[in-house]
Amino acid sequence: MSSEIPFTLRVRYGDTDQMGVVYYANYLYWFEVGRTEFCRAFGKSYADWEAEGVFLPVVESHCRYRHPARYEDQITVYTKIGEMKSSSVVFECRIEREPDRKPIASGWTRHAFVDRKGKILRGDNPLRRWIETLGE
Amino acid sequence: MSSEIPFTLRVRYGDTDQMGVVYYANYLYWFEVGRTEFCRAFGKSYADWEAEGVFLPVVESHCRYRHPARYEDQITVYTKIGEMKSSSVVFECRIEREPDRKPIASGWTRHAFVDRKGKILRGDNPLRRWIETLGE
Amino acid sequence: MSSEIPFTLRVRYGDTDQMGVVYYANYLYWFEVGRTEFCRAFGKSYADWEAEGVFLPVVESHCRYRHPARYEDQITVYTKIGEMKSSSVVFECRIEREPDRKPIASGWTRHAFVDRKGKILRGDNPLRRWIETLGE
Amino acid sequence: MSSEIPFTLRVRYGDTDQMGVVYYANYLYWFEVGRTEFCRAFGKSYADWEAEGVFLPVVESHCRYRHPARYEDQITVYTKIGEMKSSSVVFECRIEREPDRKPIASGWTRHAFVDRKGKILRGDNPLRRWIETLGE
Repeated sequence: MSSEIPFTLRVRYGDTDQMGVVYYANYLYWFEVGRTEFCRAFGKSYADWEAEGVFLPVVESHCRYRHPARYEDQITVYTKIGEMKSSSVVFECRIEREPDRKPIASGWTRHAFVDRKGKILRGDNPLRRWIETLGE
Repeated sequence: MSSEIPFTLRVRYGDTDQMGVVYYANYLYWFEVGRTEFCRAFGKSYADWEAEGVFLPVVESHCRYRHPARYEDQITVYTKIGEMKSSSVVFECRIEREPDRKPIASGWTRHAFVDRKGKILRGDNPLRRWIETLGE
Repeated sequence: MSSEIPFTLRVRYGDTDQMGVVYYANYLYWFEVGRTEFCRAFGKSYADWEAEGVFLPVVESHCRYRHPARYEDQITVYTKIGEMKSSSVVFECRIEREPDRKPIASGWTRHAFVDRKGKILRGDNPLRRWIETLGE
Repeated sequence: MSSEIPFTLRVRYGDTDQMGVVYYANYLYWFEVGRTEFCRAFGKSYADWEAEGVFLPVVESHCRYRHPARYEDQITVYTKIGEMKSSSVVFECRIEREPDRKPIASGWTRHAFVDRKGKILRGDNPLRRWIETLGE
């Protein structure tokens, strides 16, 4: 559907564990940064959507760890929209190491559309409409 | 295959995010605690296995977030062994809230058997043999 | 002033970094767990205080790292109340390794009393009164 | 002594807690990023120093939290060298929000010079010499 938006960051010391590579939970932080920058790239921050009362809690996550990332590695997170349903949307992510473009990880997160009280928004809502326009 | 091993912990303030619930990456920390306690319950810590030169890096993770966990919630992580292949093993996890046993999340992680240098161990190795005995 | 409240926990794999020891920021999580369990030990959880509209954001932190903690170490966090001023209170923490009681770290955090909107509460407030009774 | 090196980053969703602001332990991650970028700015990465056998474990940390940082805030970490002793060195950090330069936090970390086995290096060592040249 949508374009793929890249965002580059550097691995922190605190992201590693005693195996000398990045701890596996930290990839989910990077996926989140990818989603944040995806929205920013299209002109409306996720913080703004929350201020308007639409939230995107994660309901499912998946990650394949292909090659370990290490301290001071520069990596790029590529994010795009995947499947969208009536009440959920998927963000797809892949991570490459710079400058050799080695694939580091790939995965996706599925998010429900919910209101301020956590009630699922089925069918239409402003954030869902906005995401639909990104693929056009 | 194996029995399911429970471990109970309490949600920390720092585990939450501005949505007022536990940030999604923290569930992978809990899955890790579940695996650690699983090994301990069967009498040999994962630290010991690393000392003997067998490592279990995560190669894939999956999580379904069913109901949000909140600060000071007491939760139990139930862990068991899933599918084992020649060079990998799956740990399956589910998380319940105490005392109402509300399902909070479920998921799994797949791990490669590797040696100290990160080389994949195919076929037999002491840790793989040990895991096999747990289901008998 | 108050008694020292102990809480024991086990170091997670994800708490370590590539130096093979616990990453220094994680000690501040342990201090937080110590504060949470301190309040619980005296019969009123910090979550309850927030529900009543008194918050304790950290305004200063200090930690001395004496001996590294490692994966699977069992550690005890000892927490007590330190200096209390008109609009702030100090929690003092020290961490020992079990069972040899090796000193791992010590430090303190200073917290402002603030209301739901972040406004500093000077002078009297219910949480401040409650803390004062703990030392009696 | 040395110049102050700036590094700008954006606050992640996962850095916040249920108070709606950045959790206090995350500032220590930012101090670490500041130190890493400080070394990089002077042409030799900390990873290289570790490869040569000199390590800088944190032995003390201090932070004053002046104004809360929030999700999607852009912040700049300014890092410089502070007091250097025979076997330790201090990094000083301050954090400002962009673009209004609001002071967010300030603090410092003290680090021992140690070798690969964790033995303290007193007196001369290559990393200590290198740091001394930065102030000239």
